[in-house]
Amino acid sequence: MAGSVKAFGWAARDPSGVLSPFDFSRRPTLDRDIQFKVLYCGICHSDLYAVKNHWGFSTYPMLPGHEVVGVVTEVGSKVQKFRVGDKVGVGCLVDSCRKCEQCANNLENYCPQPVFIYNSVLPDGTSTYGGYSDIMVVDEDFVIRWPENFPLDKGAPLLCAGITTYSPLRYYGLDKPGLHIGVVGLGGLGHVAVKFIKAFGSKVTAISTSVGKKNEALESLGADAFLVSREAAAGTLDGIIDTVSAHHSIDPLLSLLKSQGKLIILGGAEKPLELPLFSIIMGRRTVAGSMVGGLKETQEMIDFAAKHNIMPDVEMISMDYVNTAMERLEKGDVKYRFVIDVGKTLKKSE
Amino acid sequence: MAGSVKAFGWAARDPSGVLSPFDFSRRPTLDRDIQFKVLYCGICHSDLYAVKNHWGFSTYPMLPGHEVVGVVTEVGSKVQKFRVGDKVGVGCLVDSCRKCEQCANNLENYCPQPVFIYNSVLPDGTSTYGGYSDIMVVDEDFVIRWPENFPLDKGAPLLCAGITTYSPLRYYGLDKPGLHIGVVGLGGLGHVAVKFIKAFGSKVTAISTSVGKKNEALESLGADAFLVSREAAAGTLDGIIDTVSAHHSIDPLLSLLKSQGKLIILGGAEKPLELPLFSIIMGRRTVAGSMVGGLKETQEMIDFAAKHNIMPDVEMISMDYVNTAMERLEKGDVKYRFVIDVGKTLKKSE
Repeated sequence: MAGSVKAFGWAARDPSGVLSPFDFSRRPTLDRDIQFKVLYCGICHSDLYAVKNHWGFSTYPMLPGHEVVGVVTEVGSKVQKFRVGDKVGVGCLVDSCRKCEQCANNLENYCPQPVFIYNSVLPDGTSTYGGYSDIMVVDEDFVIRWPENFPLDKGAPLLCAGITTYSPLRYYGLDKPGLHIGVVGLGGLGHVAVKFIKAFGSKVTAISTSVGKKNEALESLGADAFLVSREAAAGTLDGIIDTVSAHHSIDPLLSLLKSQGKLIILGGAEKPLELPLFSIIMGRRTVAGSMVGGLKETQEMIDFAAKHNIMPDVEMISMDYVNTAMERLEKGDVKYRFVIDVGKTLKKSE
Repeated sequence: MAGSVKAFGWAARDPSGVLSPFDFSRRPTLDRDIQFKVLYCGICHSDLYAVKNHWGFSTYPMLPGHEVVGVVTEVGSKVQKFRVGDKVGVGCLVDSCRKCEQCANNLENYCPQPVFIYNSVLPDGTSTYGGYSDIMVVDEDFVIRWPENFPLDKGAPLLCAGITTYSPLRYYGLDKPGLHIGVVGLGGLGHVAVKFIKAFGSKVTAISTSVGKKNEALESLGADAFLVSREAAAGTLDGIIDTVSAHHSIDPLLSLLKSQGKLIILGGAEKPLELPLFSIIMGRRTVAGSMVGGLKETQEMIDFAAKHNIMPDVEMISMDYVNTAMERLEKGDVKYRFVIDVGKTLKKSE
């Protein structure tokens, strides 16, 4: 495209998933675009799945990263919401059809023609590249205003891990004080879910397959109780946020729910899970899903997080550590989210 | 029990499920009880499952029937709601703990200690026997007042098939004018679901594995559209009422739902179904269950049915035809509900 600007980042070239330096170009800052310098980018487990073609629809070169924050460096002539110097964030979505019922209801994330921040194609035919890169150019409608005095580095993962847990808690009515909510899987999503649930005034029980996580769940994350999966506490929970993306049995989870309880599945295991019917029929229980959130709700979430001082626990890394971080992520060896210090450590190797 | 009264009906003695005449006794009419003469009793598919021990928890002798209507013949000294001569109905439940959160919320059907009308044990240790019998004795709190001028014979199946479909349509918000709802399985439950959905002002698409049901769905039942399962109409339905109790795939059903659509499963297949995750996560779709309804809602349902003239399509049979009816039911050979004319055809063979 005429006037396109040079950009640089780290991309995978094939399903080995190994990332390496990558030169590419971004579109120029169009009328309704903002360009921003990337300062930090979180590493989501789905970045790992994507670079390794776990779901079978990856295209290469793939430059991941969908928890991106930075500072505006240029604005298009018709941009209304942002100025140069503003702190901003971008999550999974950079465009949608803007015409459908979902878009009209601020649910761009459920638009049938979403444009994701990477591994997607824009209406003009160009591929999208994510936040493991020096600059981003994004339509202002898909940019989040960063709250004043809220840290960019620790806050970055909220743009996916935050909204992915916040949105279903709100939508499924699991955001009321006095409820008792379970969280399965204490990873990037789960540990943020615990913090939101506490902020909503509910009791949280962390549910894990690993006894070793008890102390961190109770002491570091502030969960009220800890339960090793399949331990008996039948019929005590109003809802469960299940963040496990590996194949697992939901029968023991359903039995933890009260009648009318809701099991919300956020992790997309490849194979179908087994759905036991008696549990859902005889207790009028719900099994449902959710995927990130719309732009309006993402802004609401980040403002809520800033107000309640909700921040992910992160391990800051340099860009050239990314492949090691991916290996550690695959083993679950991170508490709880890697964030790449893109601003200080992404350097052109010349 | 002192003063117990002689009763007579047809019961199964073993998992062959064959029903034959059976003498037994009912408790006397206690302070808060009503005794009524049974006039009609519907045959639900779960009666068939129960007499054949399909679920593994049947006890014998088993006297089925949970869609029971009749006329009050005696009331206890403290009964307030009914008088001799009133028309009444009883469904699946004849008691519950009356202390739990579910009971307090008029959801006796989800009480963890329900007493079912048959194959259950009362607090005093006696077994319960259903409506394929001459008289019933039931606590007035579990008795439904029959609407004036509403036929007892055709209306009887509403006490299970009616409330089982009405309750989830209400609870899951699928009762709004202008929605588009699918119904899977045009049997006893499904055909009543079509009628309620039409009464709520929604569009109904009947979904069947059998092309041959098209005419009856559109012409007899008043469905707006007919779809053979797996035909494409992706993303068009707000909700689906799935009444199929055989094992089946829900993936094609989920794909018919809009984002935020709800699949409500009412038929309890023995084996777990496969739950595809992408469909529920990427469309924020819900899979949920429901089982009959509480007493308050059952009364509301029958009053609604009377007001809107909603009646099941029934085939009236005599008591001694019951075993043949069960065989036909097993083959799906009934449009759509057998009702036993107990009042006129149940005779002591002497």
